Amino acid sequence: MNLIETLNWRYATKKMNGNKIPQEKLDYILEAARLAPSSSGLQPYKVFVITNADLLEKIKAIGWNQSQITDCSHLLVFASWDSYSLERITAVFNKTLAERGLPADTMDDYKKTLWGLYEPLSTEAHANHAAHQAYISMGIAIVAAAEQKVDATPMEGFIPAEMDKLLGLKEQGLKSVLMLPLGYRDEANDWLVNMKKVRTPKEEFITEIK
Amino acid sequence: MNLIETLNWRYATKKMNGNKIPQEKLDYILEAARLAPSSSGLQPYKVFVITNADLLEKIKAIGWNQSQITDCSHLLVFASWDSYSLERITAVFNKTLAERGLPADTMDDYKKTLWGLYEPLSTEAHANHAAHQAYISMGIAIVAAAEQKVDATPMEGFIPAEMDKLLGLKEQGLKSVLMLPLGYRDEANDWLVNMKKVRTPKEEFITEIK
Repeated sequence: MNLIETLNWRYATKKMNGNKIPQEKLDYILEAARLAPSSSGLQPYKVFVITNADLLEKIKAIGWNQSQITDCSHLLVFASWDSYSLERITAVFNKTLAERGLPADTMDDYKKTLWGLYEPLSTEAHANHAAHQAYISMGIAIVAAAEQKVDATPMEGFIPAEMDKLLGLKEQGLKSVLMLPLGYRDEANDWLVNMKKVRTPKEEFITEIK
Repeated sequence: MNLIETLNWRYATKKMNGNKIPQEKLDYILEAARLAPSSSGLQPYKVFVITNADLLEKIKAIGWNQSQITDCSHLLVFASWDSYSLERITAVFNKTLAERGLPADTMDDYKKTLWGLYEPLSTEAHANHAAHQAYISMGIAIVAAAEQKVDATPMEGFIPAEMDKLLGLKEQGLKSVLMLPLGYRDEANDWLVNMKKVRTPKEEFITEIK
């Protein structure tokens, strides 16, 4: 199955059947999310993998009562940095340089330029920029799931401040941005499963400037 | 090549060699971008495919002079809605319902709920939310390119207001958010090509709550 077939196979599953996905498939999906590109390679986000039944019920209550939250196999929550700081950037760069066996000052000019761009911005702008990166990772996790014939439902429909409390994210300098239940479609009870996939027509989606 | 292999093959190409990618590969990449999921299926973004040499020089001048802008085969620019409106949402939903052969009022309750969430938000919050969706599409375009052994460099480094002027985006209700040059790596002159790919270690990236 190539990527186009994979994208046509997937859909935002509305009803899941509660079946569990094998550990190796979960690992594969998380590895794809981890390998996703991000701005300056900072990966300003983390992924929470939730299977605790009590916690899932609490999340459902702040997530519009969407059934996939408790009918999924694993609930992923993507949480991104609440702000950038020179310390956070330096920590990532230092690790990268160490792994590449390069001198610790190799990226100093780049780091200075980068922080010069971030420093004047508001905390909200920082958080938005970090969240952008989490969306890339989630998009790639969806592709990974579909490649493994695992269903997934990208969800923004929850109360982020409440999620942050449930997961203790503030203390970790994180903000919740997305949920992604992983599991299997309940074909008999999912109104969307047989609907035509509709997208902006190619000629509207693309503008060529030659 | 499965997705993990694809993600390990790709990297943010720093030097491209000017070679052109075949039309069918370009079409494949754009089709993947078009099939990407988005919030409520609104696809609040478009993709500009630029090969015009004069325009590419102008973009380079507002894009930190990054060489890939003119050494790529095709430059993609992702531009997302500058705001949500009831009209824009209605237009997308109407088309979806028509293509699915469903009555025009099928999504009225959902539309009302959705607009009730968007309406109180600032224009900036709208634009940020629309931009989030464009990042998913761009991430999937990167995967599609890599699957086709085409290189790509996700870039935020340009002056959005200047890009908007160059492409006449304001008049289209759009804002530029990302560039993605597509092309081929110049292995002999790319400092990054042989560097180790570094990512947050799995145990830091993932938190399991069982």
